[in-house]
Amino acid sequence: MSFFPTDVVIREVGLRDGLQSIQRTLSTERKIEWIRDAWSAGQREIEVGSFVPARLLPQLADTAELVAFAKTLPGLLVSVLVPNLKGAERALESGADLLLVPLSASREHSLANLRKTPDEVVAEVARIRAARDAAGAKTLIEGGIGTAFGCTIQGRVEESEVLRCMQALLDAGADRVSIADTVGYACPRAVRELFEKARRIAGERFWCGHFHDTRGLALANVYAALETGVARFDATLAGIGGCPHAPGASGNASSEDLAFMLADMGIETGIDIHALLRLRAKVAHWLEGETLHGALWRAGLPKTFAREAASGALSA
Amino acid sequence: MSFFPTDVVIREVGLRDGLQSIQRTLSTERKIEWIRDAWSAGQREIEVGSFVPARLLPQLADTAELVAFAKTLPGLLVSVLVPNLKGAERALESGADLLLVPLSASREHSLANLRKTPDEVVAEVARIRAARDAAGAKTLIEGGIGTAFGCTIQGRVEESEVLRCMQALLDAGADRVSIADTVGYACPRAVRELFEKARRIAGERFWCGHFHDTRGLALANVYAALETGVARFDATLAGIGGCPHAPGASGNASSEDLAFMLADMGIETGIDIHALLRLRAKVAHWLEGETLHGALWRAGLPKTFAREAASGALSA
Repeated sequence: MSFFPTDVVIREVGLRDGLQSIQRTLSTERKIEWIRDAWSAGQREIEVGSFVPARLLPQLADTAELVAFAKTLPGLLVSVLVPNLKGAERALESGADLLLVPLSASREHSLANLRKTPDEVVAEVARIRAARDAAGAKTLIEGGIGTAFGCTIQGRVEESEVLRCMQALLDAGADRVSIADTVGYACPRAVRELFEKARRIAGERFWCGHFHDTRGLALANVYAALETGVARFDATLAGIGGCPHAPGASGNASSEDLAFMLADMGIETGIDIHALLRLRAKVAHWLEGETLHGALWRAGLPKTFAREAASGALSA
Repeated sequence: MSFFPTDVVIREVGLRDGLQSIQRTLSTERKIEWIRDAWSAGQREIEVGSFVPARLLPQLADTAELVAFAKTLPGLLVSVLVPNLKGAERALESGADLLLVPLSASREHSLANLRKTPDEVVAEVARIRAARDAAGAKTLIEGGIGTAFGCTIQGRVEESEVLRCMQALLDAGADRVSIADTVGYACPRAVRELFEKARRIAGERFWCGHFHDTRGLALANVYAALETGVARFDATLAGIGGCPHAPGASGNASSEDLAFMLADMGIETGIDIHALLRLRAKVAHWLEGETLHGALWRAGLPKTFAREAASGALSA
């Protein structure tokens, strides 16, 4: 018999993984409104941006401002992505609660996107850990292992290589490790098998699953991951984001569809789905013309869906 | 630890459940081409139409012709839907291999759509069974329990009522029973719980799961059902079909996405996914202007996806 977590966190990554793949730049005011509304809707972990050079991702150049605002919201865990030590130093300065360092388990993808081998990223994580400790900061360091189910460049990525990277990240001082299906190659059976092994290696330090809906399997993959006891998932409002190698393909798991699935399964997320759908409508208006995803916004909540579940009132 | 079936049948119901909810009428020639191509792609169970009065569903008025054609294809199990004894008599005459009688576990939905209570449908199944036996026909009788996870009219449908209907259908002489989430209310946890109980009641006579993707959960629901050992699912090419109560909402599970998920999980379906995608493109052209669904056609198969798996060559 499977075990389902009683509580699950949906980490909103739309402001980073979503907006970075959209040409349009959302103003800092709107991003702040998004963060505030997401927090009001009950979201308690948000990745607000990325500390990468502004010339590479001008859409995310206001990350420090967003961290400063997000830190004013009680109970919010504020995450940022950092590609290297330099970004980590900016993140530590900003006061973010968690910095995520992406590592690509596909060597070819890693070289093409990060210009480092996986082991060089591990070495960078060790330097980031040293910097964090030297600063006396409490910022959590998360190593996020991407292309964990294969990649569009290299193709196959061995499970053993993903698990080796995970152990190496932990040994280098990562407080948390995560697994991402960067290009939407995962199927639920592979998720279940890999996540079970990852849990055995990292225990509670195995932090988060990140699925793309490129081939329609994001929610099935979340379900398979839930059965291994993993209780935190990245998602983006309206499923924004995407895969540069599959134009027009769906992006991330949609936050509102995921929140609905979990609530319908009797799993607490603390999220008021009505409020989240209102925020979705607002963001969809801001992003008019962009490809958005998700099914719930169109179909609406089932008649049987408990008001209390939708409003997050069951949560502690 | 879960048990996954090694082989799964995808029953194509696009010609019935799909086309009945589309205004446009596809010509008999095109439907025959669809059936032939689906068979060529490896599909071995197809619901080709419905024996309902032509004034109600003119799109499906050519069902007898389609059965006659489909019966010429070796190894194909030809299904039709029948609402009552009169339809069943036409189905028996046509030579269909299986006739599916829909029953709605929601009393209100049943009265509104079938003008019968669930128990009156059970009584009709007993009459259909008597007619089948009197005719000495080998036609299988399947009782399909719809609105099994709730309904847009009545709201909640008790699990106990679904299971009571299932037992009553078996007692009335149904050879097979199935469960359908007619309006897309199911979540994977509910599927798993209900399907486990249904399997305990009906054993191998529990035949098929039918999921709509109204809220994006069709494939997650299939995955949950697979874990209970159920090995047959209805689906429609391009996910056509829909819910009249949720305009614009997704229809059925998409055959091609489902075929991909199963193949990726190492489960045999006998389907050549490349051929199925070519058929999808053809049907999409015929149905230009209609709302189609599915993700795989846009994203393409992963680079890692085995050619043999995609071509159904692993199948016996």
